[in-house]
Amino acid sequence: MPQKKPSKQIQSRLDQVREAMRQKSIPALLVAHPADYFYLTGFTGEDSAVLVTSRSVVVVTDGRFEGAADKEVGWAKVRFRKGELTPELVSVVQSARCSRLAIQPEKVSVATRDALRKGLKGIRLVDAPPTLSELRECKSAAELKKIDAAIRVAESAYRAMLKTIRIGQTELELAARLEYEMKRRGSTEPAFGSIVAIDANAALPHAVPGQRRVKKGCLILFDWGATVDGYRSDLTRTVFVGSIPAKFEAIYEAVLTSQKKAIAAICAGVRMCDVDAVARQHIADCGFGERFTHGLGHGLGLDVHESPSLSWRSDQTLRAGMVVTVEPGIYLPGLGGVRIEDDVRVTSKGCQVMSHLSKSLKTAVIDVGR
Amino acid sequence: MPQKKPSKQIQSRLDQVREAMRQKSIPALLVAHPADYFYLTGFTGEDSAVLVTSRSVVVVTDGRFEGAADKEVGWAKVRFRKGELTPELVSVVQSARCSRLAIQPEKVSVATRDALRKGLKGIRLVDAPPTLSELRECKSAAELKKIDAAIRVAESAYRAMLKTIRIGQTELELAARLEYEMKRRGSTEPAFGSIVAIDANAALPHAVPGQRRVKKGCLILFDWGATVDGYRSDLTRTVFVGSIPAKFEAIYEAVLTSQKKAIAAICAGVRMCDVDAVARQHIADCGFGERFTHGLGHGLGLDVHESPSLSWRSDQTLRAGMVVTVEPGIYLPGLGGVRIEDDVRVTSKGCQVMSHLSKSLKTAVIDVGR
Repeated sequence: MPQKKPSKQIQSRLDQVREAMRQKSIPALLVAHPADYFYLTGFTGEDSAVLVTSRSVVVVTDGRFEGAADKEVGWAKVRFRKGELTPELVSVVQSARCSRLAIQPEKVSVATRDALRKGLKGIRLVDAPPTLSELRECKSAAELKKIDAAIRVAESAYRAMLKTIRIGQTELELAARLEYEMKRRGSTEPAFGSIVAIDANAALPHAVPGQRRVKKGCLILFDWGATVDGYRSDLTRTVFVGSIPAKFEAIYEAVLTSQKKAIAAICAGVRMCDVDAVARQHIADCGFGERFTHGLGHGLGLDVHESPSLSWRSDQTLRAGMVVTVEPGIYLPGLGGVRIEDDVRVTSKGCQVMSHLSKSLKTAVIDVGR
Repeated sequence: MPQKKPSKQIQSRLDQVREAMRQKSIPALLVAHPADYFYLTGFTGEDSAVLVTSRSVVVVTDGRFEGAADKEVGWAKVRFRKGELTPELVSVVQSARCSRLAIQPEKVSVATRDALRKGLKGIRLVDAPPTLSELRECKSAAELKKIDAAIRVAESAYRAMLKTIRIGQTELELAARLEYEMKRRGSTEPAFGSIVAIDANAALPHAVPGQRRVKKGCLILFDWGATVDGYRSDLTRTVFVGSIPAKFEAIYEAVLTSQKKAIAAICAGVRMCDVDAVARQHIADCGFGERFTHGLGHGLGLDVHESPSLSWRSDQTLRAGMVVTVEPGIYLPGLGGVRIEDDVRVTSKGCQVMSHLSKSLKTAVIDVGR
């Protein structure tokens, strides 16, 4: 049944965005990023855009998404374009008879803005305030449930995949199995390209799975996530087949303690850079400061990397309801790397770790079949 | 071993881009889209950018891609940023001491351009000519080999998946199996979110696999592709379990003949819109004109949707070496849809169909186990 009214959640988001528009005297807002317009309207089509004014919501899409539009935004005006998106947007904005149009500068290309400017003579283009990104940072109970579901799927798939590992399998085979186990549990797509990296390949924080094979004594780094109802999970575990070399035992403990200290430091009101510093300091104290080459974590939700950035570069403050990854790592070029990552919900009193896969040194040493 | 010189292929691409820059009096070009800078340099890092001048190539990336940079662009200057990308780009461009900087308007956000403009006082920002997109349209022999490999993987995975279908399985389970079979054959990632759509779900050209189950007499539409060495394949087949209703028999034949006629019309020198018209006319003649709701096809390469667009909207001309999808479809809301898609290489004398999965009506009716 097509809905004739937006859900309470959608209505509340629209209300908040419209209030921000009113405060900034913005009569019309163009939302062009899929995760943003999904958040604001529930519409799942691609190559589309949404125009919000004080009185109306217009979804501009094409014939491929007719069914989705019927089901998801029956309460909004829907325009099906026959030609390109931008000229259709020009026409929709003109019909709205507004003096100013706000666009999201981070999410609109120079070419699109130039075409809008050319088509919309007499209408001033202004930068939209970051309201949508800020709203998306703090998750509602319904959103937390979906992230939780995406974590459960990723964890259960990981456990199932671990049981199937055999000596001689390639990184690609393990990644294939992991993604298969996620998808059959309801993940619409991997949250990002799954990383399965053996030995030296694990020294690349963004390794691509290839033809390296599982062998006795090897290290395997898994970084993977699921997507459920649009929401993502993002986890990393590093395991050792049969035994762990002394050098990596020290590295594993350094990463694990660094992660635990950072998690203990997370609380609403704390600055991002201060949490990053806790993790980084411990790794530096262990003598590996140079080998932790990336930020500590990032926001997680409809996008797998979204605001906020849990990094030394951000003096933004944690707020209750934010969900962030905490993922320190130590990488030894040519040898391997260890990263441990969990998804954490910020609360007013601290935080709640949403993922529950074991990560003790003991469980990091695994047995595999031949 | 780090290469100290770019490969012949990379050097030739750089030469062509520099020649276009010289003709347009552009001293410096910023390339920020991953598929573009991979094409131009071979660098696979994300969140990075490349500055090309007449004398130098500078790759701006971060510590996560140190290993990739060593291996792939040992011949270029590499800058590892500690902070955000854009300020680092400002500093790199300033060091290049150029009076003008070209950016790709389709691929740079308004926010990035504004920040560059603010940081680069005295340096004029201009639109880059579409040289890179145009170069990428026509594939070299080496690129054709990679697309071919991506097609082989997708086809072999599809055949393997077909054998595993059982009554009662969900769309998600079939999609999981298909992606698993692709990945273990070497596909780094699905070329796009695989579509497995049963009955009414197949009436949505961009359906999302869900919980609909295989049953006797159902229709299943598969739209999937693999990624090999960065290059994509993109195929669609529609099958019927056990038997085909008379109505869909007519629809299947209409789509198949439409596709064959379009393929027969493809040849270097022909306009995109004229090929689209051939397919569309046949479907209209069969009485389903209103139910073919999207363009006929698109370019295929490092991106799964890239220039050119094989559609009624484009009067661009086919050139030898282009690879395009040909994918007409007929969609009956609430009932189902039929789409058939192959990947085709344009030649001076016509075209070569690169994909070889059977598509006759006879092979579209399949038996599955219980």
